[in-house]
Amino acid sequence: MPREITSFSNATVKLIRSLRDKKARRAERLFLAEGLRIVTEARDEGQLPKVLAFAEAGMRHPLAQEIIAATEAAGGDTILTSPDILTKMSGKDNPQALIAAYEQPDTSLERIDRTAADLWFIGQALRDPGNIGTILRTGDAVGAGGLILLDDSADPFAVETVRASMGAMFTQALAQATWDEFLPWLRSGEGQLVGTSLQTNHDYATAPYAKPCFILIGNESQGLPEAYEAECDMLVKIPMHGRADSLNAAIAAAVTAFQVRNVWRKA
Amino acid sequence: MPREITSFSNATVKLIRSLRDKKARRAERLFLAEGLRIVTEARDEGQLPKVLAFAEAGMRHPLAQEIIAATEAAGGDTILTSPDILTKMSGKDNPQALIAAYEQPDTSLERIDRTAADLWFIGQALRDPGNIGTILRTGDAVGAGGLILLDDSADPFAVETVRASMGAMFTQALAQATWDEFLPWLRSGEGQLVGTSLQTNHDYATAPYAKPCFILIGNESQGLPEAYEAECDMLVKIPMHGRADSLNAAIAAAVTAFQVRNVWRKA
Repeated sequence: MPREITSFSNATVKLIRSLRDKKARRAERLFLAEGLRIVTEARDEGQLPKVLAFAEAGMRHPLAQEIIAATEAAGGDTILTSPDILTKMSGKDNPQALIAAYEQPDTSLERIDRTAADLWFIGQALRDPGNIGTILRTGDAVGAGGLILLDDSADPFAVETVRASMGAMFTQALAQATWDEFLPWLRSGEGQLVGTSLQTNHDYATAPYAKPCFILIGNESQGLPEAYEAECDMLVKIPMHGRADSLNAAIAAAVTAFQVRNVWRKA
Repeated sequence: MPREITSFSNATVKLIRSLRDKKARRAERLFLAEGLRIVTEARDEGQLPKVLAFAEAGMRHPLAQEIIAATEAAGGDTILTSPDILTKMSGKDNPQALIAAYEQPDTSLERIDRTAADLWFIGQALRDPGNIGTILRTGDAVGAGGLILLDDSADPFAVETVRASMGAMFTQALAQATWDEFLPWLRSGEGQLVGTSLQTNHDYATAPYAKPCFILIGNESQGLPEAYEAECDMLVKIPMHGRADSLNAAIAAAVTAFQVRNVWRKA
């Protein structure tokens, strides 16, 4: 049975609320996911929340009942509260029916098994949490193994990232490393490092992509540093037809990755 | 010379501030763009703001000085104010150096000249302003003519749209229409209506795209209504490799459009 919380100043209410903040997420090693859909997708991947909060309305759905029971069976904290307190927890006017806090996975590079997939995304200093979530979602769709975030990227456990990932947060592997850690790791095994760049005439549409292929996406406003481009096994260019000379980072990642698949499918 | 505003309750300060709200944007037929970069891109496209506000720091850059002079020459209202009032205008803690209000262009369907480009985006009930801006940005990069928004799409003049468009707001054509207005317009001239769908086995990578090609993108959570799919000249499928069965709307638009270009380049 869920425990009831009726006080706005309850410690768990404050804990959940605090997880919109990066420092608190890091200290608690937790992150938030909101809504029945994403919580169900997590469950289908074998992942249950540490804390699951809802109001009366939120526990009526049969799927919600299943997940509440499974969370309790796994030792998680299930919380029945008022719509007002749920609103406070979520920090939004119309909170989702369920608010869940999950343990952050270990994001060390050593956890990445490059043989688990033929395609990987590497994001360099990505600053937009929504872009990170969209790349995770795209990674799931294109059959990538996951995303390795380099240097001072945004927190991949931000609420905006989780929301944009549409559940891919729970299916894609995620690692964080510096470039100086990443490069020796990459070279310790097989893998082709492919950078998208305007400093080449090599057409991305027909390039010889090799498996496993690591697609390196640069920072939203600066692109890839020259030194990083120099380490790539191949630079490819997406032809630009307009006034602009760049794409949104998540768009560049998707256009490249789906084309890698097209080239492999044709071969 | 810019006029000085020193009062927080000045009518123009309130006007600019109000333009974060859709109703005010519609009533005033204005929209906001922030930052030297986008204002410069607008100028390069021959578009100058009706109102241009900045603090001392914001008018130092030579480009800013050019644009302030051009705005004044065109009869625009240029405003020198304090950093605090600029912050109030922008509604953000760290406002950009320049805040500009532009006249909304006429978005009637009749303004679209389909012969001006071989590729067009059609968005059906897109609800995320960021997605709309990203599609405009992608449209510029892929050489599309513009975006036609159908049914109850989000306001394309939202601050988030303008920001995500990275200047493409000023280079891509933009129209708003209902499906019942759009379909007769489409059929009154040449054009292939292509829908991305999971209800087909037609591979998007090798489909026979015809010019002008109108790529129809469905609502973020519902996808395309069946009746809309039925009117398409061709449905194509982007192969899905993961657990998810969908892509972000802006990602689907980009992956399809760049592949249309690839197919045409090869032919």
